[in-house]
Amino acid sequence: MIVDVSKKILIVGLGLLGGSYAKALRRFGFHISAVTLEQSSIDYALREHIIDEGTTELDVNMIGEADLVIFALYPHVFVDWIEKNQGLLKSGALITDVTGIKRSIVYRIQDMLRPDVEFIAAHPMAGREVSGVENSTDKMFIGANYIVTPTEKNTPEAIQTCMELGRLLGFSNVTTLSPEEHDEMIGFLSQLTHCIAVTLMVCNDKENMEKFTGDSFRDLTRIARINDLMWSELFVDNKDILLEQMNLFIDKFIELKTMLEAEDIAGMRAMMRHSTERRALFDKQ
Amino acid sequence: MIVDVSKKILIVGLGLLGGSYAKALRRFGFHISAVTLEQSSIDYALREHIIDEGTTELDVNMIGEADLVIFALYPHVFVDWIEKNQGLLKSGALITDVTGIKRSIVYRIQDMLRPDVEFIAAHPMAGREVSGVENSTDKMFIGANYIVTPTEKNTPEAIQTCMELGRLLGFSNVTTLSPEEHDEMIGFLSQLTHCIAVTLMVCNDKENMEKFTGDSFRDLTRIARINDLMWSELFVDNKDILLEQMNLFIDKFIELKTMLEAEDIAGMRAMMRHSTERRALFDKQ
Repeated sequence: MIVDVSKKILIVGLGLLGGSYAKALRRFGFHISAVTLEQSSIDYALREHIIDEGTTELDVNMIGEADLVIFALYPHVFVDWIEKNQGLLKSGALITDVTGIKRSIVYRIQDMLRPDVEFIAAHPMAGREVSGVENSTDKMFIGANYIVTPTEKNTPEAIQTCMELGRLLGFSNVTTLSPEEHDEMIGFLSQLTHCIAVTLMVCNDKENMEKFTGDSFRDLTRIARINDLMWSELFVDNKDILLEQMNLFIDKFIELKTMLEAEDIAGMRAMMRHSTERRALFDKQ
Repeated sequence: MIVDVSKKILIVGLGLLGGSYAKALRRFGFHISAVTLEQSSIDYALREHIIDEGTTELDVNMIGEADLVIFALYPHVFVDWIEKNQGLLKSGALITDVTGIKRSIVYRIQDMLRPDVEFIAAHPMAGREVSGVENSTDKMFIGANYIVTPTEKNTPEAIQTCMELGRLLGFSNVTTLSPEEHDEMIGFLSQLTHCIAVTLMVCNDKENMEKFTGDSFRDLTRIARINDLMWSELFVDNKDILLEQMNLFIDKFIELKTMLEAEDIAGMRAMMRHSTERRALFDKQ
């Protein structure tokens, strides 16, 4: 479906990600419309020619004409929207999302959705420490991962279309995982990482440290500038897995601390060599 | 003293840092010699014209002629060198170092040193994830901090000379701290940060995660590629302070975990806002 540029795309939620999607898809000539909360976001997007039309209202025609609807909303806002407004969607429409957790969203949406509309979930693993459509850029998809999380309810066609969307957006790696696998991966790679950065940033309030810091501390706390509303929701939605990952981290950290207490140089060196070896796998290809 | 380019500089230990010092100081026309373990390092440095002469031996003339000696060695190797070879130093010479911890080094060296030689300690807060003179570059000093850690035994002239050395090397910020203040700062900003990166890298050995990772995880683990010999020694040399910082981190991390368990969204958001606010202080100016 996607390759046919006569199809209409609607983006619900025109923020950093929604705007970046619009910018990326614009290049192919799709008709792009947007529904979002703030008129200023619509004004910006129209001025920059990244959408064809946009509104802050529930525009029945705009929603009813869209063949592909991309929801770039907070998890609970997405669920609310579907509950209240799914009647407005076009019959045969395909809907997708950008939500950072999957188990708690995908099954709920698929269970409540009209049978003539299909939801195929996806997580674009890209972001910035700023928000809003004004900061959107399709460059953030370069080198990044796009994960499609199909379930048994999804058709092969929808999965293919969603993977093609990821490639059109410019993601370097497009893959599939089950919602469960996705949440486990994200619990470790992204959520635990944010928990650590936030903790490091607030655990020592000594003054004037910024004058003496090097790149290491800056790297570890870049993501400590965090959207508290969104991330607290994502953490709670993936609570069981995130708690498990936090415990794994605490156990290892205490293991290192115990070795330091005992001045167990050989033990610390073994852990560091393991770390060095594993880190090599994560170099950008 | 430093501004007088007729003075001779000797670098003991021609690795990543020693080589980078040579490259930076070379631009001003100083006579630079080097004593190091490997002949290949000397060969490289001579070929690249970053030193005037070099040797793997304890060359009595070379050491005895140097007005400024820079020790770029592991902490215990530096202490051993001074114990064994300080008799070779020129009367009136100034010596400095690059050691990443200070309390355990500065007083020991100053206490054992001949009265006609002065040791002024410094910590260039710059590094790379690679080692060896072949990877040296004076570019790594741009935007970085150079911390001089004088004691009561130091003369104002030596402190000034060492600060001037930091500026000549190209460091963006040159400051002084007491050895105690330095070790507390470094225990948090650098050592704790490395402990966290190493722990994160080894706490979950699930396969294939590199296929799904984003920039956050890469940023937090960049320094998990670590020189295990050097860092285990630095950790033990700053053990009391580092353990204290590790405990501060664990306490806060468990606080966050407890809030997540209780789904205390307000509490998590408050911590994240604190984190966001504090991180702004650490943006590069």
